[in-house]
Amino acid sequence: MGGTKLLAGAVDARLGVHHRVQRSVADLDQAALLDVAVDAVTEARESGGAEIAAVGFGIPCLMDQRTGIGVIAVNLPLFDVPFGDVMAERLGIPVFVDNDANMAALAEHRAGAARGCSEAVMLTIGTGIGGGLILRGELYRGGVGAAAELGHMVIDIDGPPCQGNCPNHGCFEAVASGTALAREALRIARERPRSGLGRALANGLEIAGPLVTELAHDGDLAAIETLELIGRRLGVAITGLVNIFNPEVVVVGGGVIAAGELLLGPARAVVAERALPPSRDEVRIVAARFGVEAGMIGAAALAFDGLARRADVAR
Amino acid sequence: MGGTKLLAGAVDARLGVHHRVQRSVADLDQAALLDVAVDAVTEARESGGAEIAAVGFGIPCLMDQRTGIGVIAVNLPLFDVPFGDVMAERLGIPVFVDNDANMAALAEHRAGAARGCSEAVMLTIGTGIGGGLILRGELYRGGVGAAAELGHMVIDIDGPPCQGNCPNHGCFEAVASGTALAREALRIARERPRSGLGRALANGLEIAGPLVTELAHDGDLAAIETLELIGRRLGVAITGLVNIFNPEVVVVGGGVIAAGELLLGPARAVVAERALPPSRDEVRIVAARFGVEAGMIGAAALAFDGLARRADVAR
Repeated sequence: MGGTKLLAGAVDARLGVHHRVQRSVADLDQAALLDVAVDAVTEARESGGAEIAAVGFGIPCLMDQRTGIGVIAVNLPLFDVPFGDVMAERLGIPVFVDNDANMAALAEHRAGAARGCSEAVMLTIGTGIGGGLILRGELYRGGVGAAAELGHMVIDIDGPPCQGNCPNHGCFEAVASGTALAREALRIARERPRSGLGRALANGLEIAGPLVTELAHDGDLAAIETLELIGRRLGVAITGLVNIFNPEVVVVGGGVIAAGELLLGPARAVVAERALPPSRDEVRIVAARFGVEAGMIGAAALAFDGLARRADVAR
Repeated sequence: MGGTKLLAGAVDARLGVHHRVQRSVADLDQAALLDVAVDAVTEARESGGAEIAAVGFGIPCLMDQRTGIGVIAVNLPLFDVPFGDVMAERLGIPVFVDNDANMAALAEHRAGAARGCSEAVMLTIGTGIGGGLILRGELYRGGVGAAAELGHMVIDIDGPPCQGNCPNHGCFEAVASGTALAREALRIARERPRSGLGRALANGLEIAGPLVTELAHDGDLAAIETLELIGRRLGVAITGLVNIFNPEVVVVGGGVIAAGELLLGPARAVVAERALPPSRDEVRIVAARFGVEAGMIGAAALAFDGLARRADVAR
């Protein structure tokens, strides 16, 4: 589950995806959101063609793992609810829940761009920016399970207010998320009416990540510069993360990574300029292997791990 | 060893300090710096009153732990030298070396303000800003040993150049170190000649951390506001770290922490305003128990650990 879309799938033990279901979750209240989750899982479950043993959820929400209750969700009304308990009751099978970006990190570490790494940083850039950390080869959850909110480190001390329920301003998410990308693209489209971006605005197209990426791939300079602006901000955040973690790899996923090198190129250039050696020379900065499906695949891995642990306990 | 001073001590296995030696290391070239280190250790060794079994060093330098070579030191000419090997040869006893702020974290975790904690963040604020991380109960060193450079995360994207050998700008260290504190104090002293700070400048006193702290404790508003400015920037950096690590405690040490609550009060207020729940409600933000001696005491702990490990291997 991301800030605007939910993706469900029937996933086998080798993390192969057999059936996909997509739903919009934008502008729903909590009850409707829970209904959509049940509905999407039910459809994936019925269409998977095999017995579904458990469900894993990655939700864009800070979890208190002591209680299983989401404490705050920046972009969705997911807090103050024992999401896992509610889903287990409504679905009638075992349910495992963690933060969506943690699940993306788990998928990329298990079978994707961070495979075999001991230290990895995951960023999922969509409506908001999620973070996941693999430290000493394991998912890092912090004191009570609310760590890795990498989108909410401040990179611009007097920057613009963050979005949704975040009380902060100048967060990485506030200036480099898909939402920020759309905002900057709209500004640039207005400033440069004769650019591809400007003409798209005049033609009534939705000025957002997918269109900017498409225009940039077609060579529109305004769109390329928009992605470069966001890519450089991404690089500033990654500079801090490289200095903090000295990671082997930084994996960038989420919808915005459809822009690929147009975003990662400028980010890498900033890290090369601004981060400290030896960390800046050791780190690879790459796109997620599983793209927007990383969170879903990681949630499946969480469920398989959870089932295995329960079997161990029972033995 | 900090950016301007070196503190050596004869330390027993319970981390009690029996003899202290202090030296200036400001403005030395590498050869002179190594001589001062040998000299200080020799004095502490001869005055300790007991057999010294090993020496631990905390140096303000990013270590590549694969080679034992310092890769970059922001504030001292400590790089490109196998510091531990050189010291072991010149001192003739076992030597163990790690980053100074890592050592401060080790001391505070072993016997100070982070004792008993599983997740702790250490900041040492002096000439520069060092960082140390205790994650899952152990010191975190990252991929090759260069992690926890918390002073070099960007908190002001278009901020002033960082100091010494750091290629970055807008780093936490660039805006909230003791050096930044002195710079802001000088600006405020000039702007407000009738304040205590302004009169101190007119009287030719050195406008730096110790004087600002003294004047603030005496009630000088200009000095109090200077510390509040730096304290709020400290709070912005801690906000990011709280969102990243969901730590139980953030421990602040280094020379600047002599200002105590005048610095920590504003920092806590910013974290309460800007960080995400539940992390912001779980974290304690406190002064280091060992103050400026944390790094020295941690280096001793490193040496005791190192000796114990060697004895295990030999057995």
